[in-house]
Amino acid sequence: MSQKKSKVRDHQIDPGRHGASHNGIGESIAKLFARSEAAVFRERADEASVSRIIERYCREPDVTTDIDLSALAERFNQSEVPTEPCDFADYLDYLAEHVVPHSVRTCSPRFIGHMTSALPYFVKLLGKLMVALNQNQVKLETSKALSFCERQALAIVHRLLFDFPEGFYAQHIQRRESTLGIITSGGTLANVTALLCARNFCLGPSNGFAGVEEEGLAEALDHYGYKGAAVIGSSLMHYSFEKAAGALGIGLRNIIKVPVDRDHRIELPALEQAIADCRARRERVIAVVGIVGTTETGAVDPLPEMAAMARKAGAHFHVDAAWGGPLMFSTSHRHKLAGIEEADSLTIDGHKQMYLPMGIGMVLFRNPHLAKVIEKQAQYVVRARSYDLGRRSLEGSRPGMALLLHAALNLLGRKGYEFLIDEAIRKTQYMADSLRARPEFEVLVEPAMNILTYRYIPEPWRERAAAGELTESDNRIINGFNERLQKIQRRAGRTFVSRTTLNTTRYGKAVPVVALRAVIANPLTGEPDIDYVLNHQLQIAATM
Amino acid sequence: MSQKKSKVRDHQIDPGRHGASHNGIGESIAKLFARSEAAVFRERADEASVSRIIERYCREPDVTTDIDLSALAERFNQSEVPTEPCDFADYLDYLAEHVVPHSVRTCSPRFIGHMTSALPYFVKLLGKLMVALNQNQVKLETSKALSFCERQALAIVHRLLFDFPEGFYAQHIQRRESTLGIITSGGTLANVTALLCARNFCLGPSNGFAGVEEEGLAEALDHYGYKGAAVIGSSLMHYSFEKAAGALGIGLRNIIKVPVDRDHRIELPALEQAIADCRARRERVIAVVGIVGTTETGAVDPLPEMAAMARKAGAHFHVDAAWGGPLMFSTSHRHKLAGIEEADSLTIDGHKQMYLPMGIGMVLFRNPHLAKVIEKQAQYVVRARSYDLGRRSLEGSRPGMALLLHAALNLLGRKGYEFLIDEAIRKTQYMADSLRARPEFEVLVEPAMNILTYRYIPEPWRERAAAGELTESDNRIINGFNERLQKIQRRAGRTFVSRTTLNTTRYGKAVPVVALRAVIANPLTGEPDIDYVLNHQLQIAATM
Repeated sequence: MSQKKSKVRDHQIDPGRHGASHNGIGESIAKLFARSEAAVFRERADEASVSRIIERYCREPDVTTDIDLSALAERFNQSEVPTEPCDFADYLDYLAEHVVPHSVRTCSPRFIGHMTSALPYFVKLLGKLMVALNQNQVKLETSKALSFCERQALAIVHRLLFDFPEGFYAQHIQRRESTLGIITSGGTLANVTALLCARNFCLGPSNGFAGVEEEGLAEALDHYGYKGAAVIGSSLMHYSFEKAAGALGIGLRNIIKVPVDRDHRIELPALEQAIADCRARRERVIAVVGIVGTTETGAVDPLPEMAAMARKAGAHFHVDAAWGGPLMFSTSHRHKLAGIEEADSLTIDGHKQMYLPMGIGMVLFRNPHLAKVIEKQAQYVVRARSYDLGRRSLEGSRPGMALLLHAALNLLGRKGYEFLIDEAIRKTQYMADSLRARPEFEVLVEPAMNILTYRYIPEPWRERAAAGELTESDNRIINGFNERLQKIQRRAGRTFVSRTTLNTTRYGKAVPVVALRAVIANPLTGEPDIDYVLNHQLQIAATM
Repeated sequence: MSQKKSKVRDHQIDPGRHGASHNGIGESIAKLFARSEAAVFRERADEASVSRIIERYCREPDVTTDIDLSALAERFNQSEVPTEPCDFADYLDYLAEHVVPHSVRTCSPRFIGHMTSALPYFVKLLGKLMVALNQNQVKLETSKALSFCERQALAIVHRLLFDFPEGFYAQHIQRRESTLGIITSGGTLANVTALLCARNFCLGPSNGFAGVEEEGLAEALDHYGYKGAAVIGSSLMHYSFEKAAGALGIGLRNIIKVPVDRDHRIELPALEQAIADCRARRERVIAVVGIVGTTETGAVDPLPEMAAMARKAGAHFHVDAAWGGPLMFSTSHRHKLAGIEEADSLTIDGHKQMYLPMGIGMVLFRNPHLAKVIEKQAQYVVRARSYDLGRRSLEGSRPGMALLLHAALNLLGRKGYEFLIDEAIRKTQYMADSLRARPEFEVLVEPAMNILTYRYIPEPWRERAAAGELTESDNRIINGFNERLQKIQRRAGRTFVSRTTLNTTRYGKAVPVVALRAVIANPLTGEPDIDYVLNHQLQIAATM
């Protein structure tokens, strides 16, 4: 690469001082950090190259290439660090050849299998601003305005979900002692944080005992006379609760999974029984978990009844609304979240139906003082009595993703989000209707919102399927067919739906059913795209 | 805002279908997601506005404004969600007035107080690409090439630190069953993940016992006949270890903090004693923690001796090199990391001395199979035997930050990083010399790398300070003075160093000494900037 020295005017890195041993490397590095006019000029040119790559990438409708995975892996098998700095243009060429085309076009209108979607254009631009500001939300000394901005964005989301009186928000929104919510890197950490708060609250300080956080879980159970700690939710709880139970020392076996009904909602009598069983075994129920939008089918648990049971048991009531929370924006669909305001804590993901880029989850708290149970301090950072957000969060240093959340709330507005939610649910109904109109397909679960599970029924089984008379062995064959179908579709790269295994009650409880799973959230996905995906599946099936 | 419909050509959101109730909202939203030529044209114009804001922001040398914090907080006290979408230009004006100027200019050459710095220009551009690709690293179905790319970047860092033979990397770099490292949202989660692996390894399955992850911590301690679990490191361990111990159920009181010597390195006999004490109390030492670059003074623990002690005790040896790890790039300073290759796990932060934007930590493992102890699976995602990175990580969905790591390794190269590290350490020595040349200041700890602690000595105490004869009461007065000085400096916003409290041995162990703390990492910080900051402090002191 060129070693010619650029005109570094404002803030100069002095490459000369370092001595001859660096052989001009100083000039190269100076250029990368420079803020001169020449640097700005070059940056604009490079930015145009990046934009061209992005535009070319977004224009293609296919989901990805059909490259063989092991061949792709082999392109990334060098483990030696490059010695010399590489030229930016060369590196962009490399990305454009080896990385970008073999990524997964999550913005494709025909990528309707996961919870990742096209994004509004402004997040790219503000993402760049976020990186340029490079604020660290852990403390006020490295964020300032953006700490207050984060608190505001969280308060707005809190209010949408809990809808406390105006005065409540006026009091807590910027109050150092209050925590309406915490931004996390994702829904998993939001769930972990919620259960951590629940655990620390349920096993807190008492009678000269310093509490579980200070003394450890074994001591805490011992002090309180419990044989264990448990978390109870439906069998459709997200696997992040297993990560949480494992990490928090609760143990995977103490995640108690209650069966669901035909609609994939937790069975309330079974929940009541599970709580009673814990009491009988002298296990402390740390939290009852309700789900708003199960990962597999988008089902919503009966929250008001669950809240009442949790309260009666003295357990924390956590609601995992990572997917379904944004239905709060919709006048037509908000009623599906009834009871959500009873939650003690609530997870919602920014990078799902809030159309933000990957990397932003949130946990919100009914009680603005609950998060005190995880408070930490350090001399050099997160001082007591400060505005420092890192005092009450599992994570430490973290980026200013709050800027994007704040922006989206303003740039989409309640009505913009409402439109997105309403449209997604409408198109899901369209897809369900399309499936029902084709004898080849079977809808497995009526969609509660915008996740749809279905499967292909090969011709010989269609009549029996329609009559609800498939045997276990029939289902095994059909399962294998659908698994192969989805794998072929995924490998081909033109379209994408995901695959899961349901324990549907349709054919008796014991029968696992392989389901094709569509997630309809991308605003670019139109009815023709849905038809295209289904037709593609029919074509594949025809060749199998 | 304008409701005029843009020409959406390629992928059309149909705003009409939704019906009259949305009053044209569909057109607004369609524009935000559109990919037409008109959309690209408008995006470029908006991008230019964002770039102007960034350029204006970066040009200023001051760290921040002197706005009153409560006045700033009051600007963010509205909790109602905006109803209608706001125009992008209006929102940018809002940011330019209320957020950007009152942020903390972490890129300022005079911001030398925290571990956040100016960044090479390409991270902004590639940050935008990352957002545009919006890959989700949790699974191959939403990332593909970028999953392999992430594994490669981690292998490169692993090799720099552990330097195993070529064949080792050839075998493990892209092997599904191997995990050379995990990218996390930051160093805190990297440390949490390391201790989680250590805990699960030390208290794993045995003799019909399913292990701590499955059964919970209380059962595990009971099964193994331990009274508790402990983590041992120096008193300068980062507070994230407290977060970890609290979260993992170990308990804060079981973080055992061993005293440090004059150079802020752990006292080895005291460590040995602490390990023996644990054994005597029948507490399982889960991990011994070594530090490479303490947060307060940048000290490096004696790693080889610690590794030997940890091994003898059957404990996991974790090294927190969040700050100091990148010294591995430097031929001149690499020897300071001697013994780092003995680590069982190792934390290093991308957003510190690897000059990446906020939001990327890493934990690396000596044993590529260790992370199996945290493995999880789910039907709809992270399938067994897949390449899915989410199988072995505490986090779930997460962004493609690996792209930026991969880019920086290539665009800076080993030599580029070496230059940055060498320069930072050279300038720190310059600052130490400058301080020693001024009678007003006292260097508190000789910098091991590029963190420097010092303080201002008011005139009446200078003689006694020079003679090492300050009393406890003298120190209390000087402490108060330095605390006020730093607060005035911070509030003024022109320059910034941070503040901490050291238990320096210089005046006897019991004396806490308030220190001004400089972190020299910004390549834009030149010698004149260092002088400027010191002169600013002298000016402030003169008015006190």
